[in-house]
Amino acid sequence: MRNIKLVLAYDGGDFNGWQVQPGLPTIQGSLAEAILRMSGEQVLPRGSGRTDAGVHALGQVASFTTGSPIPVPNILVALNDLLPASIRVLEVQEAPAEFHPRRSARAKTYRYRMYREAICPPFLARYVCHHPYALEEGAMQEAARLVVGEHDFTSFAAVDAERAERMRQAQENADEDAPNNVRRIFSSAFSREAAELIYTVRGNGFLHHMVRNLVGLFLLVGKGTVAADEVRRVLQARDRSANPGATAPASGLYLVSVEYG
Amino acid sequence: MRNIKLVLAYDGGDFNGWQVQPGLPTIQGSLAEAILRMSGEQVLPRGSGRTDAGVHALGQVASFTTGSPIPVPNILVALNDLLPASIRVLEVQEAPAEFHPRRSARAKTYRYRMYREAICPPFLARYVCHHPYALEEGAMQEAARLVVGEHDFTSFAAVDAERAERMRQAQENADEDAPNNVRRIFSSAFSREAAELIYTVRGNGFLHHMVRNLVGLFLLVGKGTVAADEVRRVLQARDRSANPGATAPASGLYLVSVEYG
Repeated sequence: MRNIKLVLAYDGGDFNGWQVQPGLPTIQGSLAEAILRMSGEQVLPRGSGRTDAGVHALGQVASFTTGSPIPVPNILVALNDLLPASIRVLEVQEAPAEFHPRRSARAKTYRYRMYREAICPPFLARYVCHHPYALEEGAMQEAARLVVGEHDFTSFAAVDAERAERMRQAQENADEDAPNNVRRIFSSAFSREAAELIYTVRGNGFLHHMVRNLVGLFLLVGKGTVAADEVRRVLQARDRSANPGATAPASGLYLVSVEYG
Repeated sequence: MRNIKLVLAYDGGDFNGWQVQPGLPTIQGSLAEAILRMSGEQVLPRGSGRTDAGVHALGQVASFTTGSPIPVPNILVALNDLLPASIRVLEVQEAPAEFHPRRSARAKTYRYRMYREAICPPFLARYVCHHPYALEEGAMQEAARLVVGEHDFTSFAAVDAERAERMRQAQENADEDAPNNVRRIFSSAFSREAAELIYTVRGNGFLHHMVRNLVGLFLLVGKGTVAADEVRRVLQARDRSANPGATAPASGLYLVSVEYG
């Protein structure tokens, strides 16, 4: 059996997230269907991680095993012919048998796009979070720096009901490690690109909703509701209810890339 | 009564075109609903012309009459609050009573975007026509120049069944002039912007499907199926069946602007 590694881009607005769900359009489900039509093999491709409904990817990594001898360049063309236009395979390569998109990952980068002008162009509505109100961008930058390093990110994890469900699924599913909320953040910063304020974060892993919950707290810092150094206290609390921020909308979030050793 | 002029941008991919249709999302219908919720008045806004399902606008012009004293800047804010994010009001002004978005128009500009690389980014799939195959762009430029001037564009009009229906509607509807297929084209040219080949055309008016049918013929010229100067013969035939081109997909077409005297 060959282990095929894919790099994917997708418009998350068309899908109910990565993970396959009966009767709903998902990235994993669409990919499984395209592989079935290409090779006749029923496989569930593995991803580097789940993305939620509405979250986009510029470089998600997935893999699947196949007994088919179809050459790598033909896999790229065939899958792009069979997938909807909102999912594109950017790269295909044959990986060692032990390669696993999530377990082998060393780092991931996410980006969050905020459109800052009064009127958001209709062509960007699906691809950004529209935030036209005043923000202290300097304070947000200061807050963003405080999450760099190794921390327990429980205060930025998804709320309990969702986490409990994910822990249950992780225990059921041999493919998943039991949750542990310590993660190392290598970089965390805001930048400006024309009308957009962009948050970019790179780390060795991310909890469910973690980037959107970080952005939610940074927005409160930007509004002046919370001081930048409150981020330290929120981290130390290890409790989602100690974080006054809301989960920022999915439309602004992109999985940019996944790095391997 | 005040005559309110609006400049609109919209993502046509979310709508069944401009014209109101019972039970289907349309630009005109969404705008009528937003006006009703804003002022309590039931009016059908007029547009500078219909756009088809999937066709986008950067600067569509519409107008409606109102007895409400609501100030112009508040109309902009209120309509953008009430409209879906895929339709934005960019400008509002009070126009003279005799202003009519279609009858008063002196010129319109359309743009058609073709994405030329092998893999079309999923975030552009709704906003371009993907054409990764070889094209003789010089021949297309030559063909585009041949439609400049005053011509009978019957060979580029929508096919008969649709035209017959539009003529019937025009006769029923006092707001429409009887069709006449002579139009003046002021400029018609291709340009390159990074991975995109863009056709831009400015004229005093356009028939239903005219820009998409022009692009369809220019694509055959680009492929070498038809010589550039065949455009002259097709124009002279005044017959859609003399035009071997297909109607290019709606997703690449934008109404860029409407000019008034």
